[in-house]
Amino acid sequence: MVTKVIFDTDPGVDDTAALLFIHAAPELDLVGITTVFGNAHIETTTRNALYLAERFNIPCPVAQGAGQALKRRYEGPPTFIHGVDGLGDVGVPETISRTVDPRPAHRFIIDMVKAHPGEITLIAVGRMTNLALALEEAPEIAGLVKQVVIMGGAFGQNGHGGNVTPAAEANIIGDPEAADIMLGVPWPVVVVGLDVTKETFMAPEGLARLVREAGDAGRFIAETSELYKQFHIDRHGLDGIFMHDSCAVAYVLAPELFTTRSGAMRVATEGIAVGQTIQKPDSVNFAPGAWDGLPSQLACIGIDHEAVLELFHQKLALLGN
Amino acid sequence: MVTKVIFDTDPGVDDTAALLFIHAAPELDLVGITTVFGNAHIETTTRNALYLAERFNIPCPVAQGAGQALKRRYEGPPTFIHGVDGLGDVGVPETISRTVDPRPAHRFIIDMVKAHPGEITLIAVGRMTNLALALEEAPEIAGLVKQVVIMGGAFGQNGHGGNVTPAAEANIIGDPEAADIMLGVPWPVVVVGLDVTKETFMAPEGLARLVREAGDAGRFIAETSELYKQFHIDRHGLDGIFMHDSCAVAYVLAPELFTTRSGAMRVATEGIAVGQTIQKPDSVNFAPGAWDGLPSQLACIGIDHEAVLELFHQKLALLGN
Repeated sequence: MVTKVIFDTDPGVDDTAALLFIHAAPELDLVGITTVFGNAHIETTTRNALYLAERFNIPCPVAQGAGQALKRRYEGPPTFIHGVDGLGDVGVPETISRTVDPRPAHRFIIDMVKAHPGEITLIAVGRMTNLALALEEAPEIAGLVKQVVIMGGAFGQNGHGGNVTPAAEANIIGDPEAADIMLGVPWPVVVVGLDVTKETFMAPEGLARLVREAGDAGRFIAETSELYKQFHIDRHGLDGIFMHDSCAVAYVLAPELFTTRSGAMRVATEGIAVGQTIQKPDSVNFAPGAWDGLPSQLACIGIDHEAVLELFHQKLALLGN
Repeated sequence: MVTKVIFDTDPGVDDTAALLFIHAAPELDLVGITTVFGNAHIETTTRNALYLAERFNIPCPVAQGAGQALKRRYEGPPTFIHGVDGLGDVGVPETISRTVDPRPAHRFIIDMVKAHPGEITLIAVGRMTNLALALEEAPEIAGLVKQVVIMGGAFGQNGHGGNVTPAAEANIIGDPEAADIMLGVPWPVVVVGLDVTKETFMAPEGLARLVREAGDAGRFIAETSELYKQFHIDRHGLDGIFMHDSCAVAYVLAPELFTTRSGAMRVATEGIAVGQTIQKPDSVNFAPGAWDGLPSQLACIGIDHEAVLELFHQKLALLGN
């Protein structure tokens, strides 16, 4: 059975790899791309999404989403990670023939979910702003979505805390109020955070394999990842790249490659912990508190990262044939 | 070489086991017991410390410490864990011949540290209030203490979050401002948190072994642990008890049984994360933030819990001979 997917994204280098992963997978039917600010300004991430759709013949609509968080000022793009153009500064053409959907991203999400009740899986790998706006405008969509899989957060598993602060991961601290909203409604959310994405590391050999096997898509991923790779060397002393966003796609394709923990989740919005995802495991009892009455969601706490990378390669190779 | 120890404690059932562990170990010279509120009111924890000193012939002074946190109201004792009397409601005698030191705990700590520069190890297993008060009055003691080993906090390792909230452990949320102070000064702190203490579980067979091998001390630990054991069954579905405070003692005796991570630590004092210990690992780079300029401290993230329990039994057995 083919799963309908809306990909909410801020391309972004690892977003690009994840988008091509979805596009390549026959099990997934990409019915829309929605953009959000984050890895670059919203105009840039939208331009990039249109460019990727055009270059790789991805037929679905692209809808532009939020350019800022619900309540906080955007600090500006991390150009040292994704480049000024959000795609590793490889040079994106000025003229793109593909055009944006007339609807804002959150309205596009609402329309699609209502048109296909119980069928849409949302894969969200940027700030959660579009999802929060959609829930604000149409809370009933929570009951109509099949599943929400996000890349974001960090629970301290496997030694991995935050990446923007010791407590917080970028997508969540970028709009903590939005994340707190979307984790608290009764749709089934799977949080694919740094706990597992920082276990999933593609070495230069993996990028070389993409170039060999995955055609233009593979070459483009390798090319756009050069600056991103330099960031990993400078920041982490690692030769290769974390496949953050692709892990969320892998969860949709092969959840059996992940270990999860169930429990209500909140996001800290104050003090030094701002942006931290905090889960109350269902297996532990607490006195009444801030997690009460919220739905249990799944946090990924373990991953078969070798199998995830192999899955990525196998799907991408389909684009090389 | 014998290590001079001041034990800062709120007895407390697992505090009692830890105190007897120190008392039993020939490698440790217990030069003072300082009390703090927490597991019971300060009058009760002090009375209990005096009783334990008397019953088990522990010759060192007992100094009474803080009855409330630096800035927060004491919620009252968790009687469902430690009993109304703080010792599992086994019935502590009304009349105790041992009397309290005339100095408040923080002044006692200052005096002892200055009298034995570089020699004192502080083992603190309650709220960090006395330590913060001592630092406030005499910041120079930070340079005169050999080591500070605390039981408190939780970093999310091994699947263990907080025990009072999903984010916070009891000793830290009980006085988060005090903990944030004592973690931020340049004395060497080792944080023995739930990450490792919840791995260190004494089953009923262990308690039976104490009764067989450790004389009156073993019988008293088993007796006072009955209510505490019931709490573990009710709350955690576990037949046995966590040896929280004894893990801090074990670290002093055998640090090689622990895996640690080095980095500056802060405590969240606002919002839903209040009381959470957050470490910035030295191995990860971040943009400027709230952890800058603070000393690196050690968080315990792994433990050889079987060896720690065996060490506990071997030392306690010395009291049974």
